[in-house]
Amino acid sequence: MDVYLHSTGTVLPGPPIDIPTLAKMFDLPSVWEQWADSFIDTPTRHYSVDLDSGELRFSLADLATTAGERALAAAGAAPSDVDLVVMGTSSPDMLMPATVNVVADRLGIDDVATYQLQSGCAGAIQALDVARRLLGSGGHRTALVLGADSCAKHLDLTADVSALPPGEQVNGVLFGDGAGAAVLRTEPGAHEVALRWTRVRCVGHGREPGQTLNWFGAADRHADRPAAIEDYQAVRDAVPPLAAETLDEALEALDWDRGELDYVLPPQLSGRMTDEIHARLDVPDAQEVSCVRDTGNTGNALPFFQLERLLPRMIAGDRAVGVAIESSKWIKAGYALEKVGA
Amino acid sequence: MDVYLHSTGTVLPGPPIDIPTLAKMFDLPSVWEQWADSFIDTPTRHYSVDLDSGELRFSLADLATTAGERALAAAGAAPSDVDLVVMGTSSPDMLMPATVNVVADRLGIDDVATYQLQSGCAGAIQALDVARRLLGSGGHRTALVLGADSCAKHLDLTADVSALPPGEQVNGVLFGDGAGAAVLRTEPGAHEVALRWTRVRCVGHGREPGQTLNWFGAADRHADRPAAIEDYQAVRDAVPPLAAETLDEALEALDWDRGELDYVLPPQLSGRMTDEIHARLDVPDAQEVSCVRDTGNTGNALPFFQLERLLPRMIAGDRAVGVAIESSKWIKAGYALEKVGA
Repeated sequence: MDVYLHSTGTVLPGPPIDIPTLAKMFDLPSVWEQWADSFIDTPTRHYSVDLDSGELRFSLADLATTAGERALAAAGAAPSDVDLVVMGTSSPDMLMPATVNVVADRLGIDDVATYQLQSGCAGAIQALDVARRLLGSGGHRTALVLGADSCAKHLDLTADVSALPPGEQVNGVLFGDGAGAAVLRTEPGAHEVALRWTRVRCVGHGREPGQTLNWFGAADRHADRPAAIEDYQAVRDAVPPLAAETLDEALEALDWDRGELDYVLPPQLSGRMTDEIHARLDVPDAQEVSCVRDTGNTGNALPFFQLERLLPRMIAGDRAVGVAIESSKWIKAGYALEKVGA
Repeated sequence: MDVYLHSTGTVLPGPPIDIPTLAKMFDLPSVWEQWADSFIDTPTRHYSVDLDSGELRFSLADLATTAGERALAAAGAAPSDVDLVVMGTSSPDMLMPATVNVVADRLGIDDVATYQLQSGCAGAIQALDVARRLLGSGGHRTALVLGADSCAKHLDLTADVSALPPGEQVNGVLFGDGAGAAVLRTEPGAHEVALRWTRVRCVGHGREPGQTLNWFGAADRHADRPAAIEDYQAVRDAVPPLAAETLDEALEALDWDRGELDYVLPPQLSGRMTDEIHARLDVPDAQEVSCVRDTGNTGNALPFFQLERLLPRMIAGDRAVGVAIESSKWIKAGYALEKVGA
């Protein structure tokens, strides 16, 4: 059974935070700003925490509820139409209840199947994949798919960032907070954009994690143990080839020619790395749909920001492939869309 | 497409811990022992933490890997046969990498789809449900389904338990650690036990959570905020009727007569509550399959301990229904098995 993307909805908390603001807040030298500009190239991100007061302004459930409301409104769908909710996140508000169930409650969605996938950068596509396949198997008609992440527990405004090892220091400049959502249905809808293919593969056998995230956050003051570590070099080495493999798998599975691809939505680890990955994907005729320079790497939310940019641009016959790579234990994740309408 | 349960595997860490041992460890009076015996009636549980030294002896990945190995061995399946891994847990070792991917790595399972569901007592059935439906949709042949939980982060051996409010005090005596696994395949196998039906429904709209579990654990010393709270009275009120609804939904969906049910696997919150729930299920002719008095409430692992007791007892034509209810945001979860062999 075909499954169609009806709408997206996204939200970013608070104002954009630029590199000079981060540098000022953490008392970092101008050489740090230059490093962040050239090596990371993610000019802005948004935080759920107010940087002046340290106050948490939005929970993950707050963000995901807003994104869900927007996606439902854009699809012209009522909460009672939804019969499946799938959410991906690496940073739930609590371990129990799962945030997806708090969001369903707030949206007025009840008595349906809800699943929350614990995941990093591949989680949005994991959620799209599970939703597509459960819809495709005939048990449901309308799925709300959510992806959201919040750095709040990991943003220690009192930290001496200059004293942190590089694997921890890099996190603050890479990531941002946000939520995204999409409505998938078994009928075509106005956009007539079919979700043709999804694929998720863990390929971490025998490989060290490139990223780890602990239960507690740095803001919870576990000074003796790092909460979040990123092996940026390992990520930088591994992600481009894994992304290229995933794109190739999509083209092969769908029997699409490379030259027929109209849009590519590459992984968005940072502005700089997105350029490196895009070059590696070797689809020069496809238009790149990226958002990370504005949004920061919003983890499980990010693909929805890309889809939001893509959806209104697609015309009949357009084909798009999106890719996300999770560095934590190396997961390849991809999806493919085709606009079937006249 | 039909899906079959080929095997189970389970593991409990360390020795059984009885009520007198808990009372001695936390310096609780004999009246507490009497309360625990009569009101909870869960004589023993197992912990990943050594109670004498406080040392963590098993991670969640350790437990789940052992359960997975046992299930694969019992099914006569090699890691390379597995093309789908689905795990449910409320207490992952870390937020990233997801524990399922660490377990897949250790088992030698690679390049397959892996999903980790963040969930409480309904998580094992959520995992069985997702695996059954993904297998049924034709994309996979052999799924390893895992459920595991560990109280380690929440077991503060230095706590003054007698000073805790009841909603926190009750946790220590209810829960235990463990892991379970099952192999599901699209071919019948030796047991010829078909997984006929699974259903998961979040019904928490407008209801307060009956159980909350924070990111940090009590053993992580957040003295100002409780890590785990259980509204035992709300749970006791809500779970029996929700369990009865779920059983009725199974019988109706499958068009099975009440009197034709051979086995029932009720929710296992505690020994005492299992008796209350079983009475409410109103299936006096069905044999009850319970384990909580030996295992404690092992959360996402628990249904696998019940399945392990059930599987060798089933004869051709036997029908069984299992139910779990998650109190965190009120999830009904059920499954039904039928032995089809001669």
